[in-house]
Amino acid sequence: MRVEKDFIGEVEIPDDVYYGIHTYRALNNFPNTGEKLNNSFIWAFFMIKKAAAILNFELGYLNENEKNAIVQACDEWESLKNHIVVDPLSGGAGTSINMNINEVIANRATEILGGKKSEYIIDPLDQVNMHQSTNDVFPTAGKVAIIKELRELVENVIKLQDSIQVKEKEYIKIRKIGRTQLMDAVPILLGQEFGAWADTLSRDRWRLYKVEERIRSVNIGGTAIGTGIAAPKEYILKIVNKVREITKIGIAKAENLIDATQNLDVFSEVSGLLKSLAVNLVKISNDIRVLGSNAVNEIKLPKIQAGSSIMPGKVNPVIPEYVIQLSTSVISFDNLITYASSMGNLELNHLTPMIIHYTLKSIDFLKKATYSLKNYIELIQPNEEKCHENLVKSFTLVTPLIEIFGYNEVSESLKENNFDIEKTVKDLSKKRNFDFKEIMNKINSNRSAGLGYRLK
Amino acid sequence: MRVEKDFIGEVEIPDDVYYGIHTYRALNNFPNTGEKLNNSFIWAFFMIKKAAAILNFELGYLNENEKNAIVQACDEWESLKNHIVVDPLSGGAGTSINMNINEVIANRATEILGGKKSEYIIDPLDQVNMHQSTNDVFPTAGKVAIIKELRELVENVIKLQDSIQVKEKEYIKIRKIGRTQLMDAVPILLGQEFGAWADTLSRDRWRLYKVEERIRSVNIGGTAIGTGIAAPKEYILKIVNKVREITKIGIAKAENLIDATQNLDVFSEVSGLLKSLAVNLVKISNDIRVLGSNAVNEIKLPKIQAGSSIMPGKVNPVIPEYVIQLSTSVISFDNLITYASSMGNLELNHLTPMIIHYTLKSIDFLKKATYSLKNYIELIQPNEEKCHENLVKSFTLVTPLIEIFGYNEVSESLKENNFDIEKTVKDLSKKRNFDFKEIMNKINSNRSAGLGYRLK
Amino acid sequence: MRVEKDFIGEVEIPDDVYYGIHTYRALNNFPNTGEKLNNSFIWAFFMIKKAAAILNFELGYLNENEKNAIVQACDEWESLKNHIVVDPLSGGAGTSINMNINEVIANRATEILGGKKSEYIIDPLDQVNMHQSTNDVFPTAGKVAIIKELRELVENVIKLQDSIQVKEKEYIKIRKIGRTQLMDAVPILLGQEFGAWADTLSRDRWRLYKVEERIRSVNIGGTAIGTGIAAPKEYILKIVNKVREITKIGIAKAENLIDATQNLDVFSEVSGLLKSLAVNLVKISNDIRVLGSNAVNEIKLPKIQAGSSIMPGKVNPVIPEYVIQLSTSVISFDNLITYASSMGNLELNHLTPMIIHYTLKSIDFLKKATYSLKNYIELIQPNEEKCHENLVKSFTLVTPLIEIFGYNEVSESLKENNFDIEKTVKDLSKKRNFDFKEIMNKINSNRSAGLGYRLK
Amino acid sequence: MRVEKDFIGEVEIPDDVYYGIHTYRALNNFPNTGEKLNNSFIWAFFMIKKAAAILNFELGYLNENEKNAIVQACDEWESLKNHIVVDPLSGGAGTSINMNINEVIANRATEILGGKKSEYIIDPLDQVNMHQSTNDVFPTAGKVAIIKELRELVENVIKLQDSIQVKEKEYIKIRKIGRTQLMDAVPILLGQEFGAWADTLSRDRWRLYKVEERIRSVNIGGTAIGTGIAAPKEYILKIVNKVREITKIGIAKAENLIDATQNLDVFSEVSGLLKSLAVNLVKISNDIRVLGSNAVNEIKLPKIQAGSSIMPGKVNPVIPEYVIQLSTSVISFDNLITYASSMGNLELNHLTPMIIHYTLKSIDFLKKATYSLKNYIELIQPNEEKCHENLVKSFTLVTPLIEIFGYNEVSESLKENNFDIEKTVKDLSKKRNFDFKEIMNKINSNRSAGLGYRLK
Repeated sequence: MRVEKDFIGEVEIPDDVYYGIHTYRALNNFPNTGEKLNNSFIWAFFMIKKAAAILNFELGYLNENEKNAIVQACDEWESLKNHIVVDPLSGGAGTSINMNINEVIANRATEILGGKKSEYIIDPLDQVNMHQSTNDVFPTAGKVAIIKELRELVENVIKLQDSIQVKEKEYIKIRKIGRTQLMDAVPILLGQEFGAWADTLSRDRWRLYKVEERIRSVNIGGTAIGTGIAAPKEYILKIVNKVREITKIGIAKAENLIDATQNLDVFSEVSGLLKSLAVNLVKISNDIRVLGSNAVNEIKLPKIQAGSSIMPGKVNPVIPEYVIQLSTSVISFDNLITYASSMGNLELNHLTPMIIHYTLKSIDFLKKATYSLKNYIELIQPNEEKCHENLVKSFTLVTPLIEIFGYNEVSESLKENNFDIEKTVKDLSKKRNFDFKEIMNKINSNRSAGLGYRLK
Repeated sequence: MRVEKDFIGEVEIPDDVYYGIHTYRALNNFPNTGEKLNNSFIWAFFMIKKAAAILNFELGYLNENEKNAIVQACDEWESLKNHIVVDPLSGGAGTSINMNINEVIANRATEILGGKKSEYIIDPLDQVNMHQSTNDVFPTAGKVAIIKELRELVENVIKLQDSIQVKEKEYIKIRKIGRTQLMDAVPILLGQEFGAWADTLSRDRWRLYKVEERIRSVNIGGTAIGTGIAAPKEYILKIVNKVREITKIGIAKAENLIDATQNLDVFSEVSGLLKSLAVNLVKISNDIRVLGSNAVNEIKLPKIQAGSSIMPGKVNPVIPEYVIQLSTSVISFDNLITYASSMGNLELNHLTPMIIHYTLKSIDFLKKATYSLKNYIELIQPNEEKCHENLVKSFTLVTPLIEIFGYNEVSESLKENNFDIEKTVKDLSKKRNFDFKEIMNKINSNRSAGLGYRLK
Repeated sequence: MRVEKDFIGEVEIPDDVYYGIHTYRALNNFPNTGEKLNNSFIWAFFMIKKAAAILNFELGYLNENEKNAIVQACDEWESLKNHIVVDPLSGGAGTSINMNINEVIANRATEILGGKKSEYIIDPLDQVNMHQSTNDVFPTAGKVAIIKELRELVENVIKLQDSIQVKEKEYIKIRKIGRTQLMDAVPILLGQEFGAWADTLSRDRWRLYKVEERIRSVNIGGTAIGTGIAAPKEYILKIVNKVREITKIGIAKAENLIDATQNLDVFSEVSGLLKSLAVNLVKISNDIRVLGSNAVNEIKLPKIQAGSSIMPGKVNPVIPEYVIQLSTSVISFDNLITYASSMGNLELNHLTPMIIHYTLKSIDFLKKATYSLKNYIELIQPNEEKCHENLVKSFTLVTPLIEIFGYNEVSESLKENNFDIEKTVKDLSKKRNFDFKEIMNKINSNRSAGLGYRLK
Repeated sequence: MRVEKDFIGEVEIPDDVYYGIHTYRALNNFPNTGEKLNNSFIWAFFMIKKAAAILNFELGYLNENEKNAIVQACDEWESLKNHIVVDPLSGGAGTSINMNINEVIANRATEILGGKKSEYIIDPLDQVNMHQSTNDVFPTAGKVAIIKELRELVENVIKLQDSIQVKEKEYIKIRKIGRTQLMDAVPILLGQEFGAWADTLSRDRWRLYKVEERIRSVNIGGTAIGTGIAAPKEYILKIVNKVREITKIGIAKAENLIDATQNLDVFSEVSGLLKSLAVNLVKISNDIRVLGSNAVNEIKLPKIQAGSSIMPGKVNPVIPEYVIQLSTSVISFDNLITYASSMGNLELNHLTPMIIHYTLKSIDFLKKATYSLKNYIELIQPNEEKCHENLVKSFTLVTPLIEIFGYNEVSESLKENNFDIEKTVKDLSKKRNFDFKEIMNKINSNRSAGLGYRLK
């Protein structure tokens, strides 16, 4: 045990942990919610500390030994991350998390320089946190992490889209009935249904690209409220470039650091773009559930695990269900992020930790959902026989008849013929002296036109 | 009274209304919710009918008389709109609303051609609805209306931003204390606070521009499910251009009409962009509430009406409160739109009417909120005296001391001196043999640097 | 035109309207959102004014003439309600709406006493609003209105439940396949499915009863912040009883008027109970959509209107779609009400008008949804043939086999026999020397046990 | 490594884990979301398995050895829980989680009987899962866990309320200004403000009591869809009692097991009650933020940790911020739970795992929030001096003047006297020949009446 003290008093801290008294206080103040800090967020935070140390050395605020010790500690982030223990939803706009990271780096750097933990040869605040404020490093770390996580998400979305497009091509000749409002409507091709899903993902790829573009403005250098107080001008001008250099993440300095510090509408916007991916994943998943249901049965659901503890042989759409649970979570997280974004007051939004946490969580959920759905879709098989059967049984094939006879007459005749298509056509041809075959040809050619048509 | 009939039976319809039996059925089936169809939506719907009539005439499907009668009826939309009575939230993916419009145009066109209502010289379906389906005209009308409404919203946002920037410039020399987490932090200028608000609106202007870009892909020509069934190829190719020509709204044909018919993620995206404006309006409104509160009192709230029925002289921030109510409505409408967008099944989203209704409603609420807030902000006055007083009383001015003495020493000394700044500075200077004046100068210059700094 | 003035200046008000200058200001300050004040809310507000006038007369604060004039004006609420024109979402915690009502009553009472509008023989504030504050009358009017509206909703829910229970009894012998996760599971009776829906409504009836119990505590008498400032003690003690007497709505005085004025968690709670009815309506509606879909087709959807503008003969589940749109609106309104309830500050919640407005709107939407669904369900017909066919085709009938052979063996055998039930049973009987017929009997009796079983 | 196989093929499972092949499949199918199964939920699940084993032994379906082995394994749940590894949001309506628990118990019981893992002397399905279905045990375990967790929450709410009531009594003589819409209104006592908070928690205690009452109906015994298929009648009748006996949680058999299996409106209701506690916690936390802000400063915020990494001496309301983050999370989880509850189809809600997971998570967040807030409130100190100062500066003290002079005259006079109270009173007394002192007395007595009044 070692002892640290602050204005409240002394505390004992175990020797094997790297954090200090601020972290200790935070652990008592904020009971753990079970939520975990995102890995990329921790990485980004350490890299920002590294960038600041290097820049502060270059500008003469740290000597080489100090800089080297801090840099080495930051580079050990992966082994130190278990010491970042403050809750993601802790209060203080992220202060305790920043302090946790400062303390862990300071203690590790102190060790590197031959000292013992708590001796603070490197000071958590005066040196590790030099020229920084939680209010600028915390959101900047969040944005760097979001961009990093986004890239993996984009990869997954591309792969998911590819897997769907493979099916689109394979099934492009399988005719089936299209359904609107769950009711039989007019014919479509099974491949076209997959094609429609694939095209939603094109939009999502554009959106994720936009997310990166929108989130890249950072407020680092602005310190407490964006005015850059307590930081030298040269530091303010150079810190963003230094962080970009270290992280290889293409951030840019916000035009107005004050605005960027206090207004979090960008998170609402970004989350609003992410939720649209969630919307599409729910739609696709529900479509799979319907198409694969025993009643419709136009695709064969993959048998990837036992379906039921009581009904042997039952196959359930377990992956679509998993995807729906993750995606609807993202939709409600968006609701939370949006309200929280609106709740800032004056120079800061006190809910920043929550906003960043749920944004990263949404990306993570979407990563898992897209990965899992891709694997699943690859295993889907079409049920051509059933597609054909359902199509034949549908009476809405008569739609093209409307062109020939007008809506009312067709509707009347269908009713008289008890919705039997053939009888209806025969009946109508007789009444109006049309050739039955000719009409059927017209219907079929028209239908094909409709079916085969895909606008460029 | 006149009589119309359908497969259910005969009904009597008053002579003075232009709608027909389908509308009559819908009125019984869907009790009115009190919601009203958006005006621009009705306009857009009539213009689409007009465009279709003209194109169908050009392609030889309607004769000139028929076309002229329909076109004239459509041009009378403003006087006919009271006859569009079906509920915005009616079921059937918009079918009853489309039918209502078809019937009103048909009856009016029939009159123009010398007939009586219900004689249907012009048929609602065979002629007015020719080559159309609710599933393509309804969302297309929605998108045309959204773009039209957006433009007015953009105007309002620009004016609101202008009004704020006027204040930004006027108050750029008024020093005051900045607050984070509602607690006094470090100095800022009152103009900078207005500047931060103004800059959020720059982002919103970009977003509204994006909304227009994202919403402009329409599925008209795709008919029932996007395959274009029952519509001739030439019509499908030309209808979008015709609608654009008539409405002067820059829509474009969706690349994949099937996708565009069934997947409504674009509405989720667009609503996600609109809600970010709502986020900013809530933030600005809450800031005004805090700055104008008696306790802070750094701005003077406009006295635009009596504040209380019981407390004479009380001035309340009634416009910010109105703006918050409209803006949080938009945030929860976004939640609804998003869930509804995700609930589509296969070839159609059965909740399309609701999605379009609430999107238009969100735009309308934002129009009212921005208009009202702009008028209000123009009347705001600064309270320079109070700004100064609050600044002086704030002990956090010592932040720059940290650079000189380090965090711990300053913190300790502040505590010993009961958070009295002057005593703290004196105490620290004495202990460390610093010149008190020199430190104060340093603090002041440093503070100015922080304050005056606005990054380009 | 008549002239009124306040501290801002003079305005001209049309002679034919009953409102005054405060209303005039509010109309300019709050552009109309298209939302309408609930009818019962207006009624409740007038009745509260009537009750206050009578009590103030009884306590000697108004003379008989004054009282009579106010009472008569209040009793004319139905013809005066068109003059209540302030927006439901106006700011000021309802002040402008209260002022609107005060002015209309004052002007009408002035007329009754032989004066002209704007002469204010009866003063809107000193007499009509005597011993009141917006902060106590507004939420009290809201609660009285909610209870009144609830009663109609309860009626509708009872009728809906009755209509479902009629079907439950009629279809109690129709065997069909039950589905979990949209996949065929084990047998059920069609009547049992209706019975499950009906039982959800029993819970909702209990909930609506609770809503009334929870919402009945009112803060009238507390005036501005619940301390009863500016109201005499006797008035405070008696006003609730007087309002109850006049409205016949069983309200009660809140135990702590300060709490009841500032904390609106009860609205969050009440809305949370209402949304559970919405949950059930969505579930029932979606079940109808699935059961009535062409693919499942176990019930016949009522043909209550033409289904499509392009596909003759198509029947769509338009009422369930309408119900889903209203019910999901209620769910998102609950989200809004909840956030708004949490946003109060100190002695008042500035978003009170919005909270009450959306609560009443939710009740109204639910009234429409339940009414419409009831009519629809009465017209549903079962499709016994299809129920039988779907049941026979389901392979999950083998569930009871698990009892005899164990899960793994049954699962294995099903797989070997390509999920053919009969083959599976034969195969298993042979392998294990069981009598095939005996097993089939056991299966059937077991299944019946399962089916016929309804726990008391 | 040991080998297990299913219809897909063979897999290798590490020797040190207790789960089997179904769990193995699930781990691959559902990438871990970072969410953790609630501890009480795992406990409840094991206890249900224990209860079923004992009952199945009593009814003759298991022999004593089998029963004892299963019971012992269940009693070791605490040391086995690390082997329950399937994701809380996995698909299959909880099947994989149930299977995970079945396998762990079966392997442990097998060991107890002298076998090795995977030998399955006790079979996971035929014996551990005997007469059960995921669809009845999973929600039942969820409800048992919710009730257990609730009790701890109730304890915390009681303690929080107590801590507030201590302050209520202590501060009941401290006069201060009350604020509506953040503006100074009329006087109140600091103790009354705490009293209002305390009273919201009385309602929450009632609500939590209701939650327990509402959630206690369970569907165990209903097996797959509530018809009790594959379970003997006697088991169905007795299993609820057995679970109640083992868990000491007062559950009851649902009246209609079919309804209870498929309809999850009760979770929507329960979550709707929980969110009202969240609403109150947000309100209280925001009030503390405002009262403790430097501008208002009527209470002294506890200094429980360093407030800022850059601004020494700054005290932030970190606990209220933590509480707001947890509580708003609960509000948005409620939105998710509600939508998910509405999305069930026919005999099951496929989103059951998510619904139960977030309900338990909400309770957990509320437990942490109430615990933390209680500790914080105990440390709050009043700032009497500032309460007095703010009160004196407030001009709304004149409210009682309205009784004497009428609204318009007071309002006019205030304006003329630039909102200076004393001048106003003097002015009015002079104009109307009133004795100034008499008026001031009247004001003061009236104010006291208002202040001192607390209705029983």
